[in-house]
Amino acid sequence: MPPPPTAALSSSSSLCLFPLSSYSSPKKTQLGFCPSFPFTRLTNFTPARRLMTCSAVSIEKETLISHRPHTFLRETDGLDDGSVRSRFQRMIMEVQDIVCGALEAVDGAGKFKEDAWTRPGGGGGISRVLQDGDVFEKAGVNISVVYGVMPPEAYRAAKANVTDQMPGPVPFFAAGISSVLHPKNPFAPTLHFNYRYFETDAPKDAPGAPRQWWFGGGTDLTPSYIFEEDVKHFHSIQKKACDKFDPSFYPRFKKLCDDYFYIKHRDERRGLGGIFFDDLNDYDQEMLLSFATECANSVVPAYVPIVEKRKNTPFTESHKAWQQLRRGRYIEFNLVYDRGTTFGLKTGGRIESILVSLPLTARWEYDHKPEEGSEEWKLLDACMNPKEWM
Amino acid sequence: MPPPPTAALSSSSSLCLFPLSSYSSPKKTQLGFCPSFPFTRLTNFTPARRLMTCSAVSIEKETLISHRPHTFLRETDGLDDGSVRSRFQRMIMEVQDIVCGALEAVDGAGKFKEDAWTRPGGGGGISRVLQDGDVFEKAGVNISVVYGVMPPEAYRAAKANVTDQMPGPVPFFAAGISSVLHPKNPFAPTLHFNYRYFETDAPKDAPGAPRQWWFGGGTDLTPSYIFEEDVKHFHSIQKKACDKFDPSFYPRFKKLCDDYFYIKHRDERRGLGGIFFDDLNDYDQEMLLSFATECANSVVPAYVPIVEKRKNTPFTESHKAWQQLRRGRYIEFNLVYDRGTTFGLKTGGRIESILVSLPLTARWEYDHKPEEGSEEWKLLDACMNPKEWM
Repeated sequence: MPPPPTAALSSSSSLCLFPLSSYSSPKKTQLGFCPSFPFTRLTNFTPARRLMTCSAVSIEKETLISHRPHTFLRETDGLDDGSVRSRFQRMIMEVQDIVCGALEAVDGAGKFKEDAWTRPGGGGGISRVLQDGDVFEKAGVNISVVYGVMPPEAYRAAKANVTDQMPGPVPFFAAGISSVLHPKNPFAPTLHFNYRYFETDAPKDAPGAPRQWWFGGGTDLTPSYIFEEDVKHFHSIQKKACDKFDPSFYPRFKKLCDDYFYIKHRDERRGLGGIFFDDLNDYDQEMLLSFATECANSVVPAYVPIVEKRKNTPFTESHKAWQQLRRGRYIEFNLVYDRGTTFGLKTGGRIESILVSLPLTARWEYDHKPEEGSEEWKLLDACMNPKEWM
Repeated sequence: MPPPPTAALSSSSSLCLFPLSSYSSPKKTQLGFCPSFPFTRLTNFTPARRLMTCSAVSIEKETLISHRPHTFLRETDGLDDGSVRSRFQRMIMEVQDIVCGALEAVDGAGKFKEDAWTRPGGGGGISRVLQDGDVFEKAGVNISVVYGVMPPEAYRAAKANVTDQMPGPVPFFAAGISSVLHPKNPFAPTLHFNYRYFETDAPKDAPGAPRQWWFGGGTDLTPSYIFEEDVKHFHSIQKKACDKFDPSFYPRFKKLCDDYFYIKHRDERRGLGGIFFDDLNDYDQEMLLSFATECANSVVPAYVPIVEKRKNTPFTESHKAWQQLRRGRYIEFNLVYDRGTTFGLKTGGRIESILVSLPLTARWEYDHKPEEGSEEWKLLDACMNPKEWM
């Protein structure tokens, strides 16, 4: 007798750090089905990257647990409370609480449902989903911590001074928060944010080799209709967070964001951008931890006032249909291009956590073209020709 | 001033032979973003296949035309009316007429809208779409004819007796019909079919080298609810068409179909299968032309009686929501795995023709699990554990 489908569904493994997105420039698409996101800091070594296969990424299967733990760190890590990995984990747990609390307050009715899991060798995650609330159609806020192993080629290629002798596999640590929020009202925009920290251990066979670490992340806005004051407010908060650390950050990360969320086959961006960065380690580590924390803490002030303002705006069926068409584009981006999603799908990540980024409902009409000059046309134009909002 | 979005949208190039699906075994997924469908008969040469890049496939941009022509063949081809390419083209044009006529009759209200285009050097296509009819939510029936050029490595690798001297690029011809039909009623199943013929010219620099040719295609059924009599009727028509030619065809092509329409990250098939074949040239060419014709002509008797029977069955909101969830799976398969779709998206095919395969509307719920033993559970079970219906 075949096993019941539910049992089979829940036996899938999990990878929740990378569910919603991780940066890949359009040029990197030749990596094909194995976008080796965790290794993006080990860049400038295209041939070695191509050697890596998905099966080389070793992550254990998860076990669902009934209560969320205080930490997903291994005991040895957990004791070192001042480490960056420990402080980053605490930060994303706090941000998850703050964001979920703020969203429940905006929604008024919907409550987040929580699923938590651990892995035998350390690591785990917490998925929180609010579905079919008064304001939100679907809102997912996930955190996860992963202990994995990367193939030695990746490490060697990154570190030119490592000898030609084959070192053993390189253990890595990764932690992140990842979220997509889809409101019901077509005038309230979708939001995505994702902040992550990555670290390699010294390889066992080359104990003297230095650790690598880097930060990545971003926050971006996807409205169906443009309210210029909303988009400017959103970008101004991003710029403010960036400017506290480096005046070059906002223009650089704004452009990276426009480049990343590109639906090539449509020649459109998914939305109106925000900021996105990856492979960031060429600054002081403490400074970058503060920067990532500042960005994550900016999510609520950047987004919640917009949703408050638009959540009760009256709309017609035609506004809703346009929102549904734009949601179709969101799905096209996430399933076809988003590196985190495709990585998760191909490597057996926890499907429900990965695909919580997809909206509850979406629509595809044949050959739909908004009338020139209409509000729908203006949005499409801004997606095709990214604008400066500051 | 930026160009209006509509102009930019309509300037994309077209590739409509492969829009809806073309066969790739799960093992071939390492081809990544460049599934070189047109070359699948040139198999058994994995290393050479990996050399090929999408940019090596040369297909001209299309021009929309106001009237469909009698033929898309180049003049020299068109005069030779007895050729397989000419007869295959006639067959798919006739089948497009027959299927569209039958679907309009079932629908009663909806009418197909036609878009036709040609390419300067020969080839073109006709997309027909019926949207928001009484019975069909979205039905697309496309034909196309492509004259392209494949890289010499591909041809050399296929023909061991070609000398090591670099021949010129190898021109190819491809023609096909491709269709996806999504009814509104959740008890009426979705249907997909696709039949195609492929031929290479002798390369210019090696005029003595023989031509290659092969056939591919299939018809498969994707219900949201199982009516055993419907599924048996559908498979019996497929088996009857196969058995006329070779008793090994139905079991072989039934299994290939189950293997191909596999949503790996869900461990589910997209639907309840049918038949699928590719790379077929190890039989008499006339016999295979007849076989493809028989299969294409079986679409109406295999499908229309089922839709007639189910189109007015009363249903609840909950039935509709389950259908919408299954449509979400259809989209996951098409955007993530389907070789024709991903090939078309990555190579700049005509987007509207490629994505007409997506349903009008779909739904993704977090962690949805049908109750064990329910009708929804039975469908899911059959998608996870393919059954013998004959």
